[in-house]
Amino acid sequence: MSVTIPRGFRAAGVAAGLKSSGGADVALVVNDGPDAGVAGVFTTNRVKAAPVLWSQQVVQGGVVRAVVLNSGGANACTGPGGFQDTHATAEHTAAALTSVSPRLILGAGEVAVCSTGLIGERLPMPKLLPGVRSAIKSLSRDGGAAAAEAIMTTDTRPKTTVARGSGWTVGGMAKGSGMLAPGMATMLCVLTTDAVAGPAVLDEALRAATRVTFDRVDSDGCMSTNDTVLLLASGASGIEPTAAELTAAVTAACHDLAQQLVSDAEGATKEVAIEVMNAADEDDAVEVGRTVARNNLVKTALFGNDPNWGRILAAVGTTAAAFDPDEVDVAVNGVWVCRRGAGAEDRSKVDLTGRGVTIRIDLHAGTSAATIWTNDLSHAYVHENSAYST
Amino acid sequence: MSVTIPRGFRAAGVAAGLKSSGGADVALVVNDGPDAGVAGVFTTNRVKAAPVLWSQQVVQGGVVRAVVLNSGGANACTGPGGFQDTHATAEHTAAALTSVSPRLILGAGEVAVCSTGLIGERLPMPKLLPGVRSAIKSLSRDGGAAAAEAIMTTDTRPKTTVARGSGWTVGGMAKGSGMLAPGMATMLCVLTTDAVAGPAVLDEALRAATRVTFDRVDSDGCMSTNDTVLLLASGASGIEPTAAELTAAVTAACHDLAQQLVSDAEGATKEVAIEVMNAADEDDAVEVGRTVARNNLVKTALFGNDPNWGRILAAVGTTAAAFDPDEVDVAVNGVWVCRRGAGAEDRSKVDLTGRGVTIRIDLHAGTSAATIWTNDLSHAYVHENSAYST
Repeated sequence: MSVTIPRGFRAAGVAAGLKSSGGADVALVVNDGPDAGVAGVFTTNRVKAAPVLWSQQVVQGGVVRAVVLNSGGANACTGPGGFQDTHATAEHTAAALTSVSPRLILGAGEVAVCSTGLIGERLPMPKLLPGVRSAIKSLSRDGGAAAAEAIMTTDTRPKTTVARGSGWTVGGMAKGSGMLAPGMATMLCVLTTDAVAGPAVLDEALRAATRVTFDRVDSDGCMSTNDTVLLLASGASGIEPTAAELTAAVTAACHDLAQQLVSDAEGATKEVAIEVMNAADEDDAVEVGRTVARNNLVKTALFGNDPNWGRILAAVGTTAAAFDPDEVDVAVNGVWVCRRGAGAEDRSKVDLTGRGVTIRIDLHAGTSAATIWTNDLSHAYVHENSAYST
Repeated sequence: MSVTIPRGFRAAGVAAGLKSSGGADVALVVNDGPDAGVAGVFTTNRVKAAPVLWSQQVVQGGVVRAVVLNSGGANACTGPGGFQDTHATAEHTAAALTSVSPRLILGAGEVAVCSTGLIGERLPMPKLLPGVRSAIKSLSRDGGAAAAEAIMTTDTRPKTTVARGSGWTVGGMAKGSGMLAPGMATMLCVLTTDAVAGPAVLDEALRAATRVTFDRVDSDGCMSTNDTVLLLASGASGIEPTAAELTAAVTAACHDLAQQLVSDAEGATKEVAIEVMNAADEDDAVEVGRTVARNNLVKTALFGNDPNWGRILAAVGTTAAAFDPDEVDVAVNGVWVCRRGAGAEDRSKVDLTGRGVTIRIDLHAGTSAATIWTNDLSHAYVHENSAYST
């Protein structure tokens, strides 16, 4: 599993003292080539962390040979000094990697940086830079698991995946108790592949994949300043899949990681799929699903095992999607508790005692569909997020 | 206080058995004239409760002589049968009032209806209609307080107000642990005045007032199917204020009731004013304030007495408002913890132990301002809303 499954990649995860827990907090992923193609998708938040501003530029350059990731600090809202810290991290990584791997002659502009943790605090560079050097020493073809552990924050378990093509693979790791955009806490994801693929194909595959996976996870409606998804291609398999094949594998990897994010969301007791059917178009389906996913009254009802379909309908009513309030059907875990906008099957038939919940909303307005994945709103969510920075 | 302070109004509140608690649950407000002018503002939710659909039509008719309100059931998402129940309630009220008050000859089309409670359940008409008759018998010039009690749901105290003009007054009552649009639980408000005012002036005054009061309360981002604000004018003072005078008094009454809603929001431990300054225009200021007010990570941080300004900035970054992320200042309870998008004064200086919190966001993008009032997100909110219908 993880980012070192595809050929051409090494990784490491080490403890540099950024986390007060003393756990691993610096991860490094190195692409040994022969190719060094990259694609990236970043938070759409206009307040972007320094590493996001940096990595966006790096990805535009089209070549990434290393990704440095740290937990224990987001380096967001840290001003010009914070950007200089990110720059210094990339410089340091490039120089140190070049000195130990002469085959890998690289500049700072080929090093992407990702950070996650508390917003508004500068990173402790005297700890981070030695951590980078320690990670370089630990780099190995088996380092994927250690890297996945080092990027965890409130995650209770590391998240890794693999998707296999014909003679090539996609590997990946992610952290986050939420998602890309919007994101609950920060979501970071590094995907690797040994397929041969040019930057345009990589970009197309990554955007198609995130659009229907990470972008449709909406745990708490809050978008991070740091969300980043990177896809690195080494070309080490020597095999060039079609764009469709690559997209399918990248999508499968993203889907798997996205589901792991939902199942490990902060304080959640439910994993909720909101399936919107028969919408006029896909945008309507996504809007309805997302609006229901973000509704605190719906989320608290689910926490209370209460199939309160009235709150679902009230949330749908706040959207601009095409629908007739008197035509909407709603099923909770297979029981159609609402038909034509009013009560139908007995709500006591709904079993909400399990962790998985499916809400199906039939808009009767067209033929499009979309699924949004979310969580309930629990005591533990309030507890964890009211105590985060103290 | 309440709706019977202005001359020309009687009110009552009685227990009809709709609430399982046995408390008062039917309120009646009667306008004895000589005028019977009305203005109304309703939820913008597209899923509207039967009483909203009914009362919108009634208000369009321009004459309202009575308002019947019930707690213990929202009569929303109840299909054609639910609308018939509302119609029957208005018919019954008109007939029963006419029989006991021959001076008050009125039809169902002059009776507005408001309901609040659980969505998706039909009202128990065999209890409600006798309750209406009982309320008619209890009508008095002192009935305002009883009416305000009868419309409470999760409210911990009744909400009433008075605003005095020169020889005329505005009285009012409200229920709700939230607001108009959007609304946490349902917000109902009846305002009365003995001023002489035509329907156009009443409408203008009510819209101007709600725009800067109820519309800027955003307790939990959830919009109800039932939110209703009605303004009734009896003309009994014989005095016709200017439009500006009436608007000022109605705004004062709405502001007072809105603040009472915020201070009694479900499970809240904080009353939060989000003051957005130096926005490019008022819409930008409202959008920024509302977005911060709805952010669950900001709300849980406030519950934890944590001046986590990074989450505030991250929320601002998701808006389309004009601002430069490197120019934004944020103060929490007077301490400018963020200047030019980065950390400034020591966050430990912020005292969040009290109930009142002021967040000031200076966008440095213009000269407009707006304040949004909200609450924190607490364990008690989760508890109350996960247990509501069970």
